[in-house]
Amino acid sequence: MKSHTEYLWFNTKKKRGYINITPQIEGILKKSAVKEGLVLVSAMHITASIYINDDEEGIIQDIDNWLQKLAPYRDEYLHHQSGESNADAHLKNLLMHHQVLVPVTKGRLDFGPWQQIFYAEFDGQRKKRVIVKVIGE
Amino acid sequence: MKSHTEYLWFNTKKKRGYINITPQIEGILKKSAVKEGLVLVSAMHITASIYINDDEEGIIQDIDNWLQKLAPYRDEYLHHQSGESNADAHLKNLLMHHQVLVPVTKGRLDFGPWQQIFYAEFDGQRKKRVIVKVIGE
Amino acid sequence: MKSHTEYLWFNTKKKRGYINITPQIEGILKKSAVKEGLVLVSAMHITASIYINDDEEGIIQDIDNWLQKLAPYRDEYLHHQSGESNADAHLKNLLMHHQVLVPVTKGRLDFGPWQQIFYAEFDGQRKKRVIVKVIGE
Repeated sequence: MKSHTEYLWFNTKKKRGYINITPQIEGILKKSAVKEGLVLVSAMHITASIYINDDEEGIIQDIDNWLQKLAPYRDEYLHHQSGESNADAHLKNLLMHHQVLVPVTKGRLDFGPWQQIFYAEFDGQRKKRVIVKVIGE
Repeated sequence: MKSHTEYLWFNTKKKRGYINITPQIEGILKKSAVKEGLVLVSAMHITASIYINDDEEGIIQDIDNWLQKLAPYRDEYLHHQSGESNADAHLKNLLMHHQVLVPVTKGRLDFGPWQQIFYAEFDGQRKKRVIVKVIGE
Repeated sequence: MKSHTEYLWFNTKKKRGYINITPQIEGILKKSAVKEGLVLVSAMHITASIYINDDEEGIIQDIDNWLQKLAPYRDEYLHHQSGESNADAHLKNLLMHHQVLVPVTKGRLDFGPWQQIFYAEFDGQRKKRVIVKVIGE
């Protein structure tokens, strides 16, 4: 079994942001030389997510609006009594999940027509990290 | 490391539907001859999900009602300005997640008493695909 | 490829509870002797979740409050016509997801600074099980 691990760093200009990282994941897969296996892409923070969806401007904004509605900022979260102000980012992370596992077949991400991998930042403007681990043969 | 990959196709009669695919996954596992490892079951579309829950008629309808409430159809999604009309299906996909990873022990899906694998369609009436990749030994 | 499987049992005193199981997972990883690979931690029940987030009292209570709002108990769930009374626990399980996949690098859970693994119980006061499967080399 081959294993290849890399880390991606992000530091978004805005508090929230959605970045298509599919090209970086394809590059890491190529370097790993794995032909059959799996790629784990997983946020190392609890206020960011990795998800797969469409790279279309409208749906990205719809996702952001939807997250603001289902997991809004509120002063009164108990987490904020610990001096933090990002409880909504924790809830958004739980809603969107922090990881995806991408199948690799014949050396390629085995994706359907519209699948793209996104890094979703919910508490940015500081350095955050994502682990990418390829396993297989 | 053994690896075995198959694709399942779906074309639901209704827009939304919930199909128990556990027997198909068990059949693919058997063909793979993997005794110890993992089965990734992952939707290749961004308007469908794979999830694990109970095969009980009432809860399936409850899940559908709940999704219609938390991620309802709305004319005014920005995604619809691109000519699409399925933004709610994207949001339902994100809420329910598009994949599960099933442990394999002694050649069997290592499940608790009520766990069943479902394909959830949120924008059907056309051909959609799911990848099933078994890895292990 | 090495493979090592263990099961954790839980029986919470309250209906709902959030238990940090990171030390148990680290112990299982150590026993497995896997240095490079993946640990799957997956609930074997459909009314409990495994998630990764912060071990901070306030955010844990915020998560519980948020789940009670987005997936509340209701008498009128159709699942309850089957004699059950835990439909909300099924919906909470779907919202929070039932599994995480933890990368292993140099024999350690390859985590960011605040990541901790939790067992979330939504229908407790009875025996429930979690599977932990380590694969790698």
